[in-house]
Amino acid sequence: MVSCSICGKRACYHRRYSGQRFCAEHFVEYFEGKVKKTMLRYRMLARGERIGVAVSGGKDSLTLLRILSKLAEKLNLELRAILIDEGIANYRKETVERARRFCRELGIPLEVFSFKEHFAYTLDEMVKLSRRNACTFCGVFRRKLLNDAARELGCEKLATGHNLDDEVQAIVMNYLRGDLERLVRLGIDAGSEQLVPRIKPLMEMPEKEVALYALLSGIPASFDECPYAEQSFRTEVREMINRLEENNPGIKFSILRGYQKLLPYLKTYQAKALRNCKTCGEPSSGERCRACLLLEELSRAA
Amino acid sequence: MVSCSICGKRACYHRRYSGQRFCAEHFVEYFEGKVKKTMLRYRMLARGERIGVAVSGGKDSLTLLRILSKLAEKLNLELRAILIDEGIANYRKETVERARRFCRELGIPLEVFSFKEHFAYTLDEMVKLSRRNACTFCGVFRRKLLNDAARELGCEKLATGHNLDDEVQAIVMNYLRGDLERLVRLGIDAGSEQLVPRIKPLMEMPEKEVALYALLSGIPASFDECPYAEQSFRTEVREMINRLEENNPGIKFSILRGYQKLLPYLKTYQAKALRNCKTCGEPSSGERCRACLLLEELSRAA
Repeated sequence: MVSCSICGKRACYHRRYSGQRFCAEHFVEYFEGKVKKTMLRYRMLARGERIGVAVSGGKDSLTLLRILSKLAEKLNLELRAILIDEGIANYRKETVERARRFCRELGIPLEVFSFKEHFAYTLDEMVKLSRRNACTFCGVFRRKLLNDAARELGCEKLATGHNLDDEVQAIVMNYLRGDLERLVRLGIDAGSEQLVPRIKPLMEMPEKEVALYALLSGIPASFDECPYAEQSFRTEVREMINRLEENNPGIKFSILRGYQKLLPYLKTYQAKALRNCKTCGEPSSGERCRACLLLEELSRAA
Repeated sequence: MVSCSICGKRACYHRRYSGQRFCAEHFVEYFEGKVKKTMLRYRMLARGERIGVAVSGGKDSLTLLRILSKLAEKLNLELRAILIDEGIANYRKETVERARRFCRELGIPLEVFSFKEHFAYTLDEMVKLSRRNACTFCGVFRRKLLNDAARELGCEKLATGHNLDDEVQAIVMNYLRGDLERLVRLGIDAGSEQLVPRIKPLMEMPEKEVALYALLSGIPASFDECPYAEQSFRTEVREMINRLEENNPGIKFSILRGYQKLLPYLKTYQAKALRNCKTCGEPSSGERCRACLLLEELSRAA
């Protein structure tokens, strides 16, 4: 029997990059402890803040919500769950219900913001109106709506459920594409007058560990994939990184660490890159922001 | 029949990332032209300079020597081929002979510098004296000896045969390891009082194209692998990048371009990182340089 490094009971998880093994109980303890340490280390939270939590109904966002709710009383946090309803037939409705029940259990208010209401079209309608793929619209409008929602709800921070794998995939994709702009933007969490600062408390937790935590702590998370998911390049990069990790345990962390070492040198790039959209006044890397450009494109096509 | 994009004759090469196809004659013309453009673009050469060319006897370095020799008269260059004899039984001797014949044909003086003579031990002896792998010694001492040789021969520049694949592999390895120091050093070619500036005229040429050029222009290059070659991580990264390129033609270039965009932001890192070795006075990232540390280790073991 392989036994827990802490109590000697039967282990259910082997953390290869550190050599530790955990039983269910000590895995949950380790996991929650490490998320808290991450939040401390990057000073993500301050006592008494109102935190918007982006909730999709998937394992990452519900795990995040659960851990934040455990901290809420101690740190006097006010949590607001924010769910974006993109308008995807036969997909979103179920996850909205699941998220709603989970928030009710935790006693956290949930606010739903829909593409239809804010941008006049559902994602399904956008896709029909245009030749672009769904992920383009969804990425731009979800990002914008999350920020608007957090601001509207008076949140001091916006927390998202991105895990280590998400982060590392995005970093490597931008290295490979040579996309310095996105590489820098990925690391901006400072906020500005119009951008609510973002925090990613799970960014040091491998996806596998988040899935195990969700399972062990009875989080009713969906593992359904979005019907639009294709993201062939991301899939390719994900598989590549997982293969690398298999042969070089810990390499996901070294990718993240390397990126973090790089970021301070790119600070001067940030200043140059962000200005205000001529149409809506929101932060933008071009003269007009992507959201306004896409909205105009849609209204011409309609 | 697939035909050459320029003359319509039978094509022997399809450059996937640009869609062009070339016959043998136009491939050679394209290849030489692009190497010259690269040298111009990065201002690698100046009229009348004395250039040390690192020659191993492999396809890359002999291709480099051939192209530089074609330019030598026009630009009034003085070329000096520099061959490092590491002292590897049953390997180096043959490549030294091949390089010697090739240099004689081109009328370029060849100078051989050996580990034994300069560091008191052959690479084979170093490996026997120590538990380190050969590549550690070879990397450090070859780099040092190439620089010393170029300085001793009064060269203004030191040219090496690194191709696009070599560069991109090194960049990605350092991204993945999070090794900012090596990432920066890779891009230093500015030189200093003690470091002869390095140029890499083939850095924009994919390995496949260098191999084809060598073949088509009758360069007597060896494709023998060094008997110590293992470099498992580099092999893993090489295969990974080749798979990516297969699905995303041109990605090797976008990796290189992204790195080049990053480099200017890392300039401040350079200044911090390089000082002078306390023992030999050569540029070093630590208090003492790796070469001096390794030599001391060897003399203790002997």
